[in-house]
Amino acid sequence: MARDSQATKARILQAAFAEFAEYGIAGARIDRIAEAAGANKRMIYVYYGNKEQLFDQVIQQALDAGAESVPFDAEDLPRYAGAVFDHLTADPRLMRLVTWKRLERPAATELEAAAYARKTEALAAAQENGRVDATHGTGDILTLVLALAQAWFTTATATATGTDWDEEQRDAHRAAVIDAVTRVTAPRDGDR
Amino acid sequence: MARDSQATKARILQAAFAEFAEYGIAGARIDRIAEAAGANKRMIYVYYGNKEQLFDQVIQQALDAGAESVPFDAEDLPRYAGAVFDHLTADPRLMRLVTWKRLERPAATELEAAAYARKTEALAAAQENGRVDATHGTGDILTLVLALAQAWFTTATATATGTDWDEEQRDAHRAAVIDAVTRVTAPRDGDR
Repeated sequence: MARDSQATKARILQAAFAEFAEYGIAGARIDRIAEAAGANKRMIYVYYGNKEQLFDQVIQQALDAGAESVPFDAEDLPRYAGAVFDHLTADPRLMRLVTWKRLERPAATELEAAAYARKTEALAAAQENGRVDATHGTGDILTLVLALAQAWFTTATATATGTDWDEEQRDAHRAAVIDAVTRVTAPRDGDR
Repeated sequence: MARDSQATKARILQAAFAEFAEYGIAGARIDRIAEAAGANKRMIYVYYGNKEQLFDQVIQQALDAGAESVPFDAEDLPRYAGAVFDHLTADPRLMRLVTWKRLERPAATELEAAAYARKTEALAAAQENGRVDATHGTGDILTLVLALAQAWFTTATATATGTDWDEEQRDAHRAAVIDAVTRVTAPRDGDR
């Protein structure tokens, strides 16, 4: 029975991920999640609480998985940005999910605030040892790098051209991200 | 009477802008828009059709206003990016509005597709005459520039730190955007 409930909880989270990525919090329906998960609607409330709490669980799981498969690397930001690009390209629903979060539930969780602080601290050390250009503050550098890595999922380009690329297009976008992050973050001659 | 109906229509669009920016399409309520505009709910349907059509009108008005106050300038992308940053900073609801559009109504309108084509054509000319680096395609350049100009409104930084900056913070973010766009788009030595 314990194993059954673990499997049910996992199916609910998976179905909730798909539902929230498609419709956001306001648009999501617990009925549809229950049906897609083959679960009882009441059990969703028992396991996860209300719709917002279920959303928080889905976000937390997605952020944890992201941090695990794409660890932050202040010492090699171009490589990190390429890995973020790959992670988002592998499942474009991820960017939709975190975008709904920003619109509908904008307050940072404690875990998000802690992750942000860890990244800017690592960037400060990388600026100190000369690996990262120190013209701008650590929050500015982090913002620019993330914006470049996510660019194809957050700008009008996605609207105008879609993200259903062939391999050649994907490689070109990836190369552009990595090159841009290199140019933005590499110490300029004379900085060291 | 004609003047009255023009004023009512303008008030409806203004109220709809605020409602959609806050709640998106699924979350928006025509009742609230009618109340905020001091207008009759039935008149909103008469003037603008259904909720999606009203949203399209609000988006179109916002994009027209943006194109008019921040004309695209392929010959001076850093200045253009700074102007986009200023435009978004002046009213952060704008970025929320276009983000809801991307999530809830992603298909590009004909006008959006035409605006995208005009921009990439201007970039091709700027690459041709050596003003813009030609390492990457015009779609890639446009995407990276827009992503940098919007960075503070589309990344986790906004979640972690908010966008309620003092003047000094705003100037630092603006300088970082302009510098980053310069680095990403300036022709490299030997390119010409």
